[in-house]
Parts: sequence; C-alpha cells; structure tokens
Amino acid sequence: MRCEVVAIGTELLLGQIVDTNSSWIGEHLALAGIDSIFQVKVGDNADRMEFCIRQALERSDAVICCGGLGPTQDDITREVIARVMGVDLHRDEAIVEKIRHMFESRGRVMSDNNRRQADIPDGAAPIPEMPGTAPGLMCPVGDKVIYAVPGVPHEMRTMMQGTILADLQRRSGQTTAIRSRVLRTWGNSESGLAEILADRIDELDVLGNPTLAFQASGIEGIKVRITAKSADEAAAASILASEEALVRNLLGDVVFGIDEESMEVVVIDRMRELGLTLGVVEGLTGGVLAARLSEVDVAGNVFQGALVGGANNHAGEAGASGEDRAIATAKTARETFNTDVGIAVSLPETLVAPPPGQTPPPGQVYLGVVIGDKCYSTSTALPGDRNRFRNYAVINLLNFLRKTLSS
Amino acid sequence: MRCEVVAIGTELLLGQIVDTNSSWIGEHLALAGIDSIFQVKVGDNADRMEFCIRQALERSDAVICCGGLGPTQDDITREVIARVMGVDLHRDEAIVEKIRHMFESRGRVMSDNNRRQADIPDGAAPIPEMPGTAPGLMCPVGDKVIYAVPGVPHEMRTMMQGTILADLQRRSGQTTAIRSRVLRTWGNSESGLAEILADRIDELDVLGNPTLAFQASGIEGIKVRITAKSADEAAAASILASEEALVRNLLGDVVFGIDEESMEVVVIDRMRELGLTLGVVEGLTGGVLAARLSEVDVAGNVFQGALVGGANNHAGEAGASGEDRAIATAKTARETFNTDVGIAVSLPETLVAPPPGQTPPPGQVYLGVVIGDKCYSTSTALPGDRNRFRNYAVINLLNFLRKTLSS
Repeated sequence: MRCEVVAIGTELLLGQIVDTNSSWIGEHLALAGIDSIFQVKVGDNADRMEFCIRQALERSDAVICCGGLGPTQDDITREVIARVMGVDLHRDEAIVEKIRHMFESRGRVMSDNNRRQADIPDGAAPIPEMPGTAPGLMCPVGDKVIYAVPGVPHEMRTMMQGTILADLQRRSGQTTAIRSRVLRTWGNSESGLAEILADRIDELDVLGNPTLAFQASGIEGIKVRITAKSADEAAAASILASEEALVRNLLGDVVFGIDEESMEVVVIDRMRELGLTLGVVEGLTGGVLAARLSEVDVAGNVFQGALVGGANNHAGEAGASGEDRAIATAKTARETFNTDVGIAVSLPETLVAPPPGQTPPPGQVYLGVVIGDKCYSTSTALPGDRNRFRNYAVINLLNFLRKTLSS
Repeated sequence: MRCEVVAIGTELLLGQIVDTNSSWIGEHLALAGIDSIFQVKVGDNADRMEFCIRQALERSDAVICCGGLGPTQDDITREVIARVMGVDLHRDEAIVEKIRHMFESRGRVMSDNNRRQADIPDGAAPIPEMPGTAPGLMCPVGDKVIYAVPGVPHEMRTMMQGTILADLQRRSGQTTAIRSRVLRTWGNSESGLAEILADRIDELDVLGNPTLAFQASGIEGIKVRITAKSADEAAAASILASEEALVRNLLGDVVFGIDEESMEVVVIDRMRELGLTLGVVEGLTGGVLAARLSEVDVAGNVFQGALVGGANNHAGEAGASGEDRAIATAKTARETFNTDVGIAVSLPETLVAPPPGQTPPPGQVYLGVVIGDKCYSTSTALPGDRNRFRNYAVINLLNFLRKTLSS
C-alpha cells in the first residue's frame, strides 16, 4: 500500500509557510505501515495541481491532498479533484448549515464565500471530523482514493487520526501489526545513548525485529523509538513490551517518559500521585515554565502559581553563590504560593541572557528545589540563543525536580 | 526562468526531519525573481531520484538537489546526477585534500568514506563555497543546469547565497526586481478581509501587478501579502508602498504590524516609545502571556513581571460582572509590579477552561486594561481546545491593549 502526499499552496513554494504537514503525515503513514515514496508541493494552479494528483494516483494507491480547501478564490482543491474524478461538484446543504452554525456560535455571520467550502465532488463523501469550516473529503477514483484535508495542522491531524489512517489500513488489507513506542530521554547525548545500546543494536540488526532508532529532538530531548512487527497485535505488543523493559534497564533514569509524555506531564503526574503542590519563581525563563506547567495541570491541583520577573529581575541575595541564590528563590516560591514544593532557576550574577538570534558561549545556570524543609541544588551549562537557553533551563529544572522526587 | 527543488532523503519522507531547506530555497528564489512551481521530496532510492530529477529538468530550466552528498552508502546524489548527465564520475584530488585538511584542522583523521565526497560527474564543477566536507556541484545538462547542495542548512545557504542565486539570475538574463510586504491583521476573518478588499483584488487581477494574497496563520492572525514586480528595485518599492497605503486605508486598525512583527513585538515597542511599564496577572492563560512578553522585551524595561495563578485561581470579587473582575485584576497587576499599565484576562465564573484536546462550545472571556487611573474592558468569544483558547485569549488581550494605547 502506497500513499503519496500532495501539499497545495503557493505560499509553501514561496517559503512563507514551512510544510510541516507533509512531515507529520509521512511519519504517521510510516507508523501505520503504509509506504510514502514521494511528496510534492505545488502552487494554487489548477493545471499543475491536476498534473501532480494524477501522477501521484498513477504510481500509488492513495493520495492525500493537503490545503486549498478554504473559502477564497485561490482555494481550488475541490474543483481540481472533481476534474480528476471526471465529475461535477454539488453543494452539500448539511455542510453549509454546519459552517453557518460554527460562525453563529462565535457570534459572527457566515460570509457568502464560505458556502463554497460545502461544494463536494459527486461520489465523494465528507470526512466526519470537521473541527474548522473546511470539510475534508474522501474521493474514490476506481479502486484508488484521493483524500483532501485542510492545511490548518490541527484540522488535518484530527481528520487523519479520526478517519484517514484507519481507512488506509482497511484498504490495504494488511495483517501485519506494527506497534511502536518512544522512550523519552533527557541527560545524555545521542552518541552516548548509542554507545550504551551498541551491543543490543548489533543483536537487533541480525534479528531484524524489533528495531531501535534515535531521534534528537532539541529541547524535547532524545527519543529512542522501538518498533515491533508481528502477525497480530498481541504478539507485536508483547515484543514491544519486552524490548522496552530491556532498553529501560540499560538506559536507567535518563528515560523520563514515553510517547507523547513531555517532561512537565511526567512531573505534574508524579506530584499529583504524591499529593504535593508546586510554586514557582521565574526570572530568566520569564513565564515559559509556568506556561508549560499550567498547560498540562488542567485540574490545577498541583501547580499553584508563579511569580514571573522581567529580564532584569533576578531574585536572590547579592554575594551569595549561584546555588544558594537558586535555593533562596525556590524558598520564596514555596512561601509565596504556600505550597509543599518550590522551584527556581538562577543565573550567575555576571551573566545576562543572550540577545535573540545570538549564540553566546555556553552559560551556567543554577537550579533550586525546596521540598518542605529540604533543599536541593545543582548547576548545569546550557547552550543556545536566548530562546533555546530559556527552554533548556526549564527542562533541566523540571528534570532535576523529577530526579529529586524519585530519590 | 524556472527552477525546481528536489529534496533528497528517506528521513524527510518519514517525517523525522522537517524539510525547511525547500522552503528557504523557495523564498530566496522568489525574492530573486525566479519561479519555482514544484518541489519534490524523494527517498534515498536511485531510480526514484533519477525520475524526479529528469522530470524536474524537463519542465524547468534548473534543478536544485538538496541532500545526499554525505559520506555514507545511502548518499547517492552524485551517482544519480552522473546518470542523468550520461557521464562518469571522477575523483577530484584537490577536493580530497580540502576535506582532509578540514578534518586535520579539527584534530581528526579523514575516514576513507569521505573520499567518496570528492567524486564529481565529468563536466560538472564544484561550487567554490565549501563550509563542510560535502562539496556542492554545478552540473550543466545541455542549456539547463542541475545544482547539488548538502542537506545541512547552513552549508546549503552559503552555497545558494555565494554562487547559485547569482548563477541563476545570470542565466535568466532577467532584470525584474520583486518586493513583497506582509500586513499582519487581527480581528477579522479571512473571508471578511477578502470582502473588504474584493474590489481592489478584482482591479489587480486585471492589472496583474502588484498582487494580494491571504494567509490564515491561526494564533498569529491573518496575513495579507502584497507582492510587486518591476524593472528596477526603486520602482518595485514604490508600487509596494502605494499599495500598502491603499490596503491599510481599506482595512483600518485590524492591521497591527508588518512582516515578522508579532503582536507582542508591536505592543512592547509601542509601550517603550510611550515610556510605559507593564504588569500582568494571568489565571487561565497560565504564563503564556508572560512568556511571550519576556521573550521579546529583551531589555526588560517594559515588562516588569507577572503573577500567574493556577487553573483554579481566578482573581476577582465573587458576584462582580466579568468585565468588572477583569478590571479589578488588571488593577492588581498594576499595583503588584508598580507599573504604569496593568492587564488581565478573566473568565465567566461558571466557565472552566476546556480540557486538552477537547473542543468546547466557544467561551466568553473578559479583557481588562488599566492605564494610570483609566480603566478599559471588553469581552470576546473564543474557540478552540484549551491550548488554542489560552493563546487566543493572550492575543486578544494584547490586541485590546494595542487599540487602547492608540485611541
């Protein structure tokens, strides 16, 4: 089963938008065991779009067209797909009503342009998930299929995960079950992890299944992906589980989570289990830590608040060492929000955060964690321009809190 | 003059790397007045690579192949281009020496694999800029040309800017100058903007120059791009300036900035001009606002700090209206940080922020701005799951502050 991706939009060719959609789709097709051998970007030009879609349909079993479903005149994916199918468009009044309702619930009036979004090629079906005003389409062409999804990433993803990936797997009739798991790590380099796992990777090269792959993901750490194939799901899951146990045993506590678990999810979940509340003081990191904690602590029963200073507002006593200042600030966090735990990150007094876009020599930061009357501190050197520096400081502080809680 | 981009690498199709190179190349081709009508991603497979390069060469005057010039066995771009040219490869000993020297100057020994990087198709020339161990290539094919550049972004960029863009312009013999400007908007829908500009767009469709294009960018608002072409730069700049004035006049104060200016950049810059300082209280938005402000206020002389509450920590007096509570909270912000301006966003007492991943009915939020002893408030309905809801709340509050400052 092969599926190509045709990303549509002149703005993609002009580099005004980076095409992250094709990458996301490629990744999820691969995880579903579907090959994707070409991906094409084409502008909002009917003849060229038609050429690309026809060519993709010739050499593959399915085509995902991404973009060009909006309400404006340059959104012509619907028309071009109808041309490829050799059919007319009809207006789906139920979809018009859905769109109208969507506008009304936001207190707006649907413009006439938006009616065009309800035009559907004869023989095609709208995709049930419709998070925005653009319906997705499933368009049969003989025994092949064209899917059309909006270019808005979260709308595309909702349709891929709700309908398209399952439809592709059904069409492929494939019986190979593929399961994968990502072990999220922080605190070792890619080559460091590779050395620890070298013998196991050699063994797996001979066995062929499961496989291990590394993916350096910047401020999200380094991901180790285990992929297992088998005739049925239970067998694949079992291969995956024993490989995960083996890899975890080799890597130890650099593994902080799995799959989509971010560092903050892991920390908030652990604190909730322990019944602990958390207060934060941020200077350098300017709200990045609070934003990440509050995003995942939906119930709000762990993260109680943050005091965020401006760029020149570095809390701590003059003359004290970096680690002492980090602890003093963490105490302030704990007292301000009346919590069990307080955390803070502190800079050397001589260091100012590097300006945007500039890469300074790696800078030292000091991490402070206060749990009840126990104080912990450490320091680490961080690379990066100002934005990456802030984000590295946040994940290092959370990782230090995670390790302190497990010790 | 048309130039296509062929991005090479299985990791691009699998989504392990997002192809930012093609976007960058597309942007710089456009700015140099060179059309790029297709961009293709293909894996490390000789037959498919050859197919893509031949097809691109058929329909365009030039092809840029990006990636596959490394030292390992799956780096086969050199071989495939030689196949397309119908020639053999020869080893360029001067390049071998360059690579060897590069390793030695880093205190390393060149491996035998790296010699392969000095293999060059007969009739091709290495690109003079060589920031890494992979030489770029200029490969004439009749009166057309294939360029090969490494996938490492800074190496590719150095070769594009040093040699390839100039070579393309020389080949095209063109003198057209192209200038473009993005007007950033907030507060109207794409179709709403299109209706306001409909007559002008019709006029421009006849004129053909300049052009207007819309780009919906989620929480960054909707972008309106004006692109002007002319025989020389001054004329293009002049067309652009008069079109910008015309469009600004039609759209009014929904235009908040230009090009890369985000809402927070515009607000911080405006407050710095006015000599005003800013304090923030955040409940729902949990630090997102502080993180965005502190990221751009590098000097730290506007944004003085934020008090961030947890999800259940909605400041304000019970029983008061939403707008009154927003104002009361903005006053707290101003007093806490001893600033000229305080801002806050408040929820209806009955509304809790929607859980992650779920799309709730659109919710009302209340925005409060306090400048000295003057109080301003408004309310707006926001869509989206929890994360988008938070981000929409932030940009709406900043936009409200922007409009209040200009009124």
